Amino acid sequence: MVETIEWRDGTVVMIDQTVLPREEKYVVCRNYEEVAAAIKSMVIRGAPAIGVAAAMGVALGVSHSGAERLDEQFDTICDTLAKTRPTAVNLFWAIDRMKKLYSRLRGRPVEEIRKALIEEAGQIRLEDIAINRAIGAHGASLVPDGKTVLTHCNAGALATAGYGTALGVIRAAVEAGKKIDVFADETRPFLQGARLTVWELQQDGIPAKLITDNMAGHFLKSGRIGCVVVGADRIARNGDVANKVGTYGVAVLAKENGVPFYVAAPVSTLDLTLPDGQQIPIEERPAAEVTHVFGVAIAPAGTEVENPAFDVTPNRYVTAIITEKGIAQAPYEESLTALATMK
Amino acid sequence: MVETIEWRDGTVVMIDQTVLPREEKYVVCRNYEEVAAAIKSMVIRGAPAIGVAAAMGVALGVSHSGAERLDEQFDTICDTLAKTRPTAVNLFWAIDRMKKLYSRLRGRPVEEIRKALIEEAGQIRLEDIAINRAIGAHGASLVPDGKTVLTHCNAGALATAGYGTALGVIRAAVEAGKKIDVFADETRPFLQGARLTVWELQQDGIPAKLITDNMAGHFLKSGRIGCVVVGADRIARNGDVANKVGTYGVAVLAKENGVPFYVAAPVSTLDLTLPDGQQIPIEERPAAEVTHVFGVAIAPAGTEVENPAFDVTPNRYVTAIITEKGIAQAPYEESLTALATMK
Repeated sequence: MVETIEWRDGTVVMIDQTVLPREEKYVVCRNYEEVAAAIKSMVIRGAPAIGVAAAMGVALGVSHSGAERLDEQFDTICDTLAKTRPTAVNLFWAIDRMKKLYSRLRGRPVEEIRKALIEEAGQIRLEDIAINRAIGAHGASLVPDGKTVLTHCNAGALATAGYGTALGVIRAAVEAGKKIDVFADETRPFLQGARLTVWELQQDGIPAKLITDNMAGHFLKSGRIGCVVVGADRIARNGDVANKVGTYGVAVLAKENGVPFYVAAPVSTLDLTLPDGQQIPIEERPAAEVTHVFGVAIAPAGTEVENPAFDVTPNRYVTAIITEKGIAQAPYEESLTALATMK
Repeated sequence: MVETIEWRDGTVVMIDQTVLPREEKYVVCRNYEEVAAAIKSMVIRGAPAIGVAAAMGVALGVSHSGAERLDEQFDTICDTLAKTRPTAVNLFWAIDRMKKLYSRLRGRPVEEIRKALIEEAGQIRLEDIAINRAIGAHGASLVPDGKTVLTHCNAGALATAGYGTALGVIRAAVEAGKKIDVFADETRPFLQGARLTVWELQQDGIPAKLITDNMAGHFLKSGRIGCVVVGADRIARNGDVANKVGTYGVAVLAKENGVPFYVAAPVSTLDLTLPDGQQIPIEERPAAEVTHVFGVAIAPAGTEVENPAFDVTPNRYVTAIITEKGIAQAPYEESLTALATMK
C-alpha cells in the first residue's frame, strides 16, 4: 500500500497526487516552504492529509531553525503553512496543535523542542489512521447491503494519512461482508474521483465504476444507489458541510430521491466557532484547472472561468455525520457539540 | 458565421464538432453511409441538427440510387440513418417527413424524386433556422434582465441549422437589449459546453463564463442565476424531457433554489406517442468518452464506466417549454397537444 505522507530522514515524503494514476512519483520536501508549496499545488490534498502535512511542515521548519529568535521563526513557519489553502479547517487545527505544544515547550533547549514537534507530527499522522478506522467502524452499519455507494471526490487513503474517511466507511462495509459496489464521480476539475478514488478501489479489489459528475442525478433517480458517502473540509456548528464543489448538488439530488446522504469526517473537521456554513471561506482556484485537462485545452482561448473549489451543503440535506466518536444526526448543533466535547 | 450543415454540389458538408474549437475542419459526406457515420460519431450533434443531417442523408442516398428497386434502396437508406442514434426524436421525425414525400412521389421519374428530396432536405434546414428565430422571439421575454443565464450542453447554432434553441433564446434576449451573461456547464464527457457553447458565445460577443458541471448547484444557490435554459432531445406527451445527461440534476437544483427552468425546442422534438419520459430510449455511449479527454487518459487502465448520454427530467421541474408556436406550461399534456396540432 502506498503511503500518502511520511516523515523520512528529516524530510517529508508525499506521493504526488497531481500526476496519479499515470505516474507513481514521490515528492521529497526538504524545508517547510516546499511543504507549503506541495499543499498549495495539491501534490497533497484532502482535509485530514493536509492537516498532517501542515504539522510535518511545522516540525520540518523548526528542525531547520536556528536557536536564536525561534519564536519569530516559528510564527513565520506557521503563517506560511496557514496561508496555503483557506477552506479545510484541519490545516488550522493541526497548526494550532503544534502551536500549543510549542508554547508549552518555550524556553526549553531547541533540540528538545525539535524532537517533540517531530514526534507530535508523527503522532497526528498515526492518530489520523486510527480515527479513520473508527469512522469506518461507525459508518459501516449505515451502508445498505447489495446496493451501490456513490461518492464524490476522493475521501480515501490519499486524502488522509491512510484508510480514508468516506472510503474508510466503504472499506469497513466491505470488510464486514457487505456486497456493495461504488460509483465514483469523476470530480472535475481536478478529477480526484477518476484519478484517485477509482485507483484506490482498484487496488483494494472493490468493484467501482466511474461516472461524470453530471450523471449522479440520473443514477440517484434510478434506485440503484443505496447511499451517498462523502468527506468534508469544514463542518460548521449547525452541521452545514463544506466539501469539494459538487457535493451540494449530489446532496440535493440524494434527498430528492430519498437516498441517505452521509458525511464522514474526523472531529478535527468540525469548526464550532462558525454558527453556519455561510462563514466558511471558499477557495477560488486557478482558471487553468477548468480550461485544461492534463495540459490539453478543452475550451477556446480567452475563456473566462469561475473555479470555486468547494461548496456548502446546508444541514437539512445531511442524513448523518459519521465521526470517530460516533454518528451525529440533526439537530446538529447539539449532536456535534456533544461529540466534540466527548473524551 | 460558420454553417453547421449545408448541401453543396451533391455532397453534405458539416463542421466537425468533435474537434472544435481547436480546429475548424469541415467533413464532406459523399454518400449516405458517411452521413450516418458522421451522426454516430457526433461530427454533427444536437437534436435539430441531426434531423437536418438525416434528411440530407436520405436525399444524398437517393441521389446515388439506381432507378431499379428504388423502394428497397430507399428503405435501406432510411433504416441506416435511423439506427445512428436512438434518443433524439428529430432524427426519426425528419426521416418520416422524407418518407412521406417519397411515398407521394412513388412511380414518378427518378430524377424528379431526387430533386424533390434534395429540395425537401434544404427546406427542413431553412425551416429550422426560422423555427429557432421564433423560439427566440417567444423565449426572450422569459429571461430576467441583469442576471446570469445558466445553460447545459450546446443547444446553439451548432446543434441546429443555425441560431439555436436555448442559445436562440439567449441571443434574442441580448438582441432585445437585456443585459445578461451566460454560465456554460462544460458538459462532460463530450464537453459541448466548454468546446461549443463558449465558442459560439465568444463569436457573438455575449459575455460567458465556463464552469464545471458540478458547480451549477453552487451558483444556483448563490442567487446569481436568473434562469436556466436548455434544449431537448425528446419531450414526452406529459412534458417529461430527455436531454443531455446532467440536465435532470440542473433542473432539480434550479427548482430547489426557486430558479425558473426553461426548455427550448421545436415542435418536432415532441413525441406525443409516448405517455411519459420513462419510455424514451437512453443511448449508452462508448466508455472512452469518459476515461479519456482528447485522447488523454484521466483514469487508471481498466476503469469501468457508465456512460448514459441523456437523462430524463420529470415535468414537475420544467417551468415552461418554449417552442416556435408558443410557450407551453403545465399541465403539459394539454398545452403540448394544443401546440402540436396548431397550424
